[in-house]
Amino acid sequence: MKRSKIEYSPIGIIHSPFSKPTDMPCQPGLGKNIKGIIEVFPEYQEGLTDLDGFSHIVILCHLHLSTQFHLRIIPRLETEKRGLFATRSPRRPNPIALSIVRLDNIEENRLFIRDLDMVEGTPVLDIKPYINESYEDDEIRLGWLENIRSREIS
Amino acid sequence: MKRSKIEYSPIGIIHSPFSKPTDMPCQPGLGKNIKGIIEVFPEYQEGLTDLDGFSHIVILCHLHLSTQFHLRIIPRLETEKRGLFATRSPRRPNPIALSIVRLDNIEENRLFIRDLDMVEGTPVLDIKPYINESYEDDEIRLGWLENIRSREIS
Repeated sequence: MKRSKIEYSPIGIIHSPFSKPTDMPCQPGLGKNIKGIIEVFPEYQEGLTDLDGFSHIVILCHLHLSTQFHLRIIPRLETEKRGLFATRSPRRPNPIALSIVRLDNIEENRLFIRDLDMVEGTPVLDIKPYINESYEDDEIRLGWLENIRSREIS
Repeated sequence: MKRSKIEYSPIGIIHSPFSKPTDMPCQPGLGKNIKGIIEVFPEYQEGLTDLDGFSHIVILCHLHLSTQFHLRIIPRLETEKRGLFATRSPRRPNPIALSIVRLDNIEENRLFIRDLDMVEGTPVLDIKPYINESYEDDEIRLGWLENIRSREIS
């Protein structure tokens, strides 16, 4: 029961200037300003009402090109193996990507977005409004990424 | 092709003090400090390596009790209908919940977490490290939620 299969159907599809993963910028932040379109299938268009008031949206996509995974991997640009769930690797047991993108405008069932890091044809599972929740009361620790962060900043 | 079904299998399960959705706090922030456990199935345990260095994690869960949806809904505690994708309603075409929780510690395949807003037995699809990305260069607009935010703060 608790391990039963879960079945989803895409609500839309990504249109992107990147036709394959190797076309994409491989460092965070380099995808900034890349423009794309989310085509929401017409039967879901009504659910987009009120979304145009949000500057940023969360998109959950199915990484359809991700066909296998390993539980320990060497992250891109790194040298040391890390546990898969401590990374953002696209190769995961359930290859769901979480992206926060800027929403420029909506025309009918088409969402014009920026900061895209998906390839052409990626199926979209869900769209949610982005809410900038504050964790400032908490200390944020970034594990093995702490070193990388300080390298990027310096 | 682009509308083909997507099949996932849970990587784990949530253990929560809430046995049904109506037990849960219905305002954001009230779930703060609620403790729970993510039981990761043993075959994925190795993928948890290095995750204990992170203070917060992102969990994607399948909302197994969500069986239907409407494209326009009245959000909880509100009076006006809104487009579904402009809300965080659990009733969605693909009912995937996105939660950011605090990670207290890991014992083998069990993650001890806080700030839980899921019911007992919720299937877990993915776990990712939480990285506090900064959108401070961008103006953040929260659409219809702007009014609610100012009400909460005042």
